Amino acid sequence: MLIVVIGKESPAYVEAADGSELRFVDSLDDAADVFGEMDAVIGHLRPEVLAKAPKLRWVHSPSAGVDADLSPEMLASSVVLTSSAGNGGISLAEHSILLMLMLSRDVPRWMRAQAEHRWDHYRHGELAGRTVGIYGLGNSGIDLALKAKAFHMRTLGVRRRPDQPSPNVDELCDLDQLLAESDFVVVTTPRTPSTAGVFDRNAFARMKSSAYFICISRGGIADDDALLEALQSGQIAGAGLDAHGVEPLPPESPFWSLPNVVVTPHNGATSDGTLRRSGEIVSENIRRFVAGEPLHNVVDKSAGY
Amino acid sequence: MLIVVIGKESPAYVEAADGSELRFVDSLDDAADVFGEMDAVIGHLRPEVLAKAPKLRWVHSPSAGVDADLSPEMLASSVVLTSSAGNGGISLAEHSILLMLMLSRDVPRWMRAQAEHRWDHYRHGELAGRTVGIYGLGNSGIDLALKAKAFHMRTLGVRRRPDQPSPNVDELCDLDQLLAESDFVVVTTPRTPSTAGVFDRNAFARMKSSAYFICISRGGIADDDALLEALQSGQIAGAGLDAHGVEPLPPESPFWSLPNVVVTPHNGATSDGTLRRSGEIVSENIRRFVAGEPLHNVVDKSAGY
Repeated sequence: MLIVVIGKESPAYVEAADGSELRFVDSLDDAADVFGEMDAVIGHLRPEVLAKAPKLRWVHSPSAGVDADLSPEMLASSVVLTSSAGNGGISLAEHSILLMLMLSRDVPRWMRAQAEHRWDHYRHGELAGRTVGIYGLGNSGIDLALKAKAFHMRTLGVRRRPDQPSPNVDELCDLDQLLAESDFVVVTTPRTPSTAGVFDRNAFARMKSSAYFICISRGGIADDDALLEALQSGQIAGAGLDAHGVEPLPPESPFWSLPNVVVTPHNGATSDGTLRRSGEIVSENIRRFVAGEPLHNVVDKSAGY
Repeated sequence: MLIVVIGKESPAYVEAADGSELRFVDSLDDAADVFGEMDAVIGHLRPEVLAKAPKLRWVHSPSAGVDADLSPEMLASSVVLTSSAGNGGISLAEHSILLMLMLSRDVPRWMRAQAEHRWDHYRHGELAGRTVGIYGLGNSGIDLALKAKAFHMRTLGVRRRPDQPSPNVDELCDLDQLLAESDFVVVTTPRTPSTAGVFDRNAFARMKSSAYFICISRGGIADDDALLEALQSGQIAGAGLDAHGVEPLPPESPFWSLPNVVVTPHNGATSDGTLRRSGEIVSENIRRFVAGEPLHNVVDKSAGY
């Protein structure tokens, strides 16, 4: 058995492989001589490699959202794709609360005052008593609900599978109710055919003018033109954007300079904790693969996550 | 019975007074003609007024921390002093989490990048798994502990009355342990004779060099010279300061421009929610005073809060 790992040597992976062969490479090109023998790849697979790897049974994506891994070739193949979903959930929930607090308290205003050594004291909002509407109740969304309850907030949630447990969510609802009642709308879903473009002109028009839009998962779930228009017209109060339609966000993007927008560079999950949890997910799946046990985090290719 | 209220007319106070006379004034000077008849004052009392108000039995401070209200004259008098403690606890706990997240993720760096339309992606810390040491378990401290547990943190607490319930605090400890083990030290206590100057050179020297110091209650609990030295020398990693030794913080203060310090202008509790809760505290105490019931939030003058 041969498992090719794109990345630096990991003693934890070696231990998990329990004697099976691991080959660590900087790039998949460095394993071109063994494409025909690979049983598994840990890392992003270029679609054309699938045809050259007849023994390949498993690919593990280092990403939580696998929209970029789901090429037509991968969709058509019987290779099992697993994701790193759950690695960044805690970190993204932290980032959501950070963005909500920054918008509610107008942190950019304090930062400008600090740069000018100016004591700028003003009244602001608090999260307590407000409603957060969580669009997507996966790992990030469920952890955000836990945190929101500790902030004495009301929690609404939209989820594709309402039969799954949704702890700390006061009410599961449809998108209409979420838009109408939320003071903070937080997008945590993967980008899939059924979420892409959901936040369009019509959606922003149904939000409260005092409400904030936050996206911590993927760009493209909001229509950026519609979002920009809603922010510029005062249709909504502001936005906290970690994920963007085009990344890196180009210097000429108007989002950078809107006074009611906090931009972070798809950086919400890039924490020491995410890195550690990613490694744990891979180790466990290597152990299971070698032992012939069912893998964790198997992607439902038709659902897109 | 006459209750003088410094502030604008409040229908809720009038209703709570149940027919007893309320006089609303912009400043206590506007009530100089009735000092001799006042039974109570809602607002900050200048010490010299005590001698001119023989009937005065109750003063309610609009502040949560009453260090500025406890003049020698007030300490020597039998007038009951009540505080607005509890009005800002939730808002200060929100502010604590905000400052912890801002320091852990280096938000000032993102804000600089946003101002320059620059995509500055880097690895940062997360709160999960870290230890927060809460110095003082009053309203803010207890609510902070609740939030910290939802952030998957370990919580340590120092409190003067360990017999009181401390929900969500994993361990009550002494200052030494708090300093040695905390990744975030958060000061939430009032400034009293026993807390003033507690965070001195010796205290900062016992903190981890990776740890952050946060103060959301009162300046003067930390020795500003010692704090500055600890921040400049790298003895500690950074600070989030809402309360300062001198307020407003003067333009020439070095705290404004330290790269590892977030300064906010004693603004953590200045939220719409605090204002609402302050009004509720006053209404309830007016109702109790008029009905001859024991007041809420009576200050222990010897303890200072």
